[in-house]
Amino acid sequence: MKKTTEQKPRLLTGDTPTGKLHLGHWVGSLENRVAMQRDYDCYFILANMHAFTTRASCPQEIRQNVLDITLDYLAAGIDPHLSTIFIQTEVPAIAELTFLFSMLVPYPRLMRNPTLKDEIRDKQLGDNYPFGFLLYPIGQVADILAFRAQVVPVGEDQLPLLELAREVARRFNQLYCGVDPHTADENYVSAGGLFPLFQSKLGRTKRLVGLGGPGAHGQLLKMSKSLNNAIYLSDDNDTVYKKVMSIYTDPHRIRATDPGKVEENPLWIFHDAFNPDKDWVEETKMLYQQGGVGDVVCKKKLVEVIIALLEPMHERRKLYSQDETSLLAILREGTARANVLAEDTLKKVKQAIHQDYFLREFILKDR
Amino acid sequence: MKKTTEQKPRLLTGDTPTGKLHLGHWVGSLENRVAMQRDYDCYFILANMHAFTTRASCPQEIRQNVLDITLDYLAAGIDPHLSTIFIQTEVPAIAELTFLFSMLVPYPRLMRNPTLKDEIRDKQLGDNYPFGFLLYPIGQVADILAFRAQVVPVGEDQLPLLELAREVARRFNQLYCGVDPHTADENYVSAGGLFPLFQSKLGRTKRLVGLGGPGAHGQLLKMSKSLNNAIYLSDDNDTVYKKVMSIYTDPHRIRATDPGKVEENPLWIFHDAFNPDKDWVEETKMLYQQGGVGDVVCKKKLVEVIIALLEPMHERRKLYSQDETSLLAILREGTARANVLAEDTLKKVKQAIHQDYFLREFILKDR
Repeated sequence: MKKTTEQKPRLLTGDTPTGKLHLGHWVGSLENRVAMQRDYDCYFILANMHAFTTRASCPQEIRQNVLDITLDYLAAGIDPHLSTIFIQTEVPAIAELTFLFSMLVPYPRLMRNPTLKDEIRDKQLGDNYPFGFLLYPIGQVADILAFRAQVVPVGEDQLPLLELAREVARRFNQLYCGVDPHTADENYVSAGGLFPLFQSKLGRTKRLVGLGGPGAHGQLLKMSKSLNNAIYLSDDNDTVYKKVMSIYTDPHRIRATDPGKVEENPLWIFHDAFNPDKDWVEETKMLYQQGGVGDVVCKKKLVEVIIALLEPMHERRKLYSQDETSLLAILREGTARANVLAEDTLKKVKQAIHQDYFLREFILKDR
Repeated sequence: MKKTTEQKPRLLTGDTPTGKLHLGHWVGSLENRVAMQRDYDCYFILANMHAFTTRASCPQEIRQNVLDITLDYLAAGIDPHLSTIFIQTEVPAIAELTFLFSMLVPYPRLMRNPTLKDEIRDKQLGDNYPFGFLLYPIGQVADILAFRAQVVPVGEDQLPLLELAREVARRFNQLYCGVDPHTADENYVSAGGLFPLFQSKLGRTKRLVGLGGPGAHGQLLKMSKSLNNAIYLSDDNDTVYKKVMSIYTDPHRIRATDPGKVEENPLWIFHDAFNPDKDWVEETKMLYQQGGVGDVVCKKKLVEVIIALLEPMHERRKLYSQDETSLLAILREGTARANVLAEDTLKKVKQAIHQDYFLREFILKDR
């Protein structure tokens, strides 16, 4: 029997719109999301305000990426009738909760965040990052708590950010709902708290490598738009062919009869990640190591595998009108649904903090 | 001829609701506000979210202070038909703009703010202040820019905060409205900018001392609720009498015939600030310095003067129903008016940053 929305645990996750989605997103999260949407009441946020932390000077790109990702979601199999896709800046309660939650996080606590430190280093932000870069972890807390999510899927590197959200939830529940600090996490709501202490759901957290060779530190680089080493979900068959045929393999292998290395070899990492024919992969890997099969054969097989994965997405992509108006109609419906829930949370928050002066009604309309 | 709202320059100022208003507020700002409301389209914000920077654990007090200050405003002569009194957290655009503007302020720029540093020292916040304490200057920027104020009255100590608002306005106008960075401040709007480069209006910025003697550093302390040295606008005549009779004067003067010091003497600072009979003040000061008049006589005169100032306020206070419902009705009307303007600003901001996905309609209702 299909579960109704009411019975399903609520799940929140999403993307910061900084580029179209690629195979790294698929194995890292999107595949799981598509699978989870029948068992969870899924909210997928397009965190466009967070894109301004690094891209404030390209707002048009941010808009385009919001639309691109929406289409990627739909193509990948996110069903807008089952799941709620919405735009962060069209849910005012998120900004309002961000402002409030900033009052509940001690400054040194925020600055201790290892994820934040890593990002400042990785993105080479130096000392001159916008203040909003420090605010965005609290924005993420608000993203989660606005929807009182019970489950938040997450990669390992994001765990410190989720711990912050759980701390804010505990603090709010203790300070404003009178929950005893000794309460066990799973009992916060039954003890009168507004915010559930959600579970982080560590996915298979695969971090897919890109098409190219190792970087300056000798390690294979993550698939990423900025490194120009990605296969996008929207790439057509020709593009997939060209990209896969150019994939980095074992550089010491000159002839097909040379023994090849399968570790740290994107060709085989991709086969492991995408080829459903595990027997073929194991057998051919063995041959490859013995110098019994050429790169080209294995690459052509990988082309087939990836095209087989992407083809149904291309088909679904065609089902949706790809003009802005039609995509916005889907987003408006999701965003209106998201607002119903977020406004209800905000109303309860305002009651708890005694700042419930008025009620408000909120109607989202087409432009 | 009375100016219509449209013709009047728009003015924004307000208070963080952390206590009832006292004579220090009157001479520092309120007196000016009452005088300005005919010539300016005045918006008075009750910045209740900012009160959470230091009082997150007493939300009921914050609510009570919002109502107390509203009544103080009305009693002092702010006319809700002429001026707009509103509650910060009931204007969502302010939080939304705060989030966006945080993306336009470099982190080191914010931390250089001398006002912020002084407050951290004065309020003895140490290292463990909430992150929201750093966010609140950007919240103030949003308070001002949400209403595209042309004039912002301000005390000298607040000038750095206003400079931040002007920087954000310049940056937004340059980045998202295409205004040339060489444009003169007064031409930003005619050059296509959304935000006027408002004028700071340095008031008479009187900083009234309290009733007590000097503090640890030998200087008279500012009138302030936390120092328990204030005469409140709502104090009745008996309370005023008791407080004035206990005022600190020249400690070296034992008898009325001893020569007295008029500098650094709250008795005379108060006469200078409140007594309209300047001749009496000058003559009696002279006598006082020569040992020709007693403290009690001068204090009794000051009682008269302060009661004469407060009595019309008490009368007006009676005109307004002082129950929560009636005050909230006035605040709802002001807040609804504030939202019309702030929503219009937010709509234009979203257009400028290409994040105008939908339109929204927003109705404020009684609880």
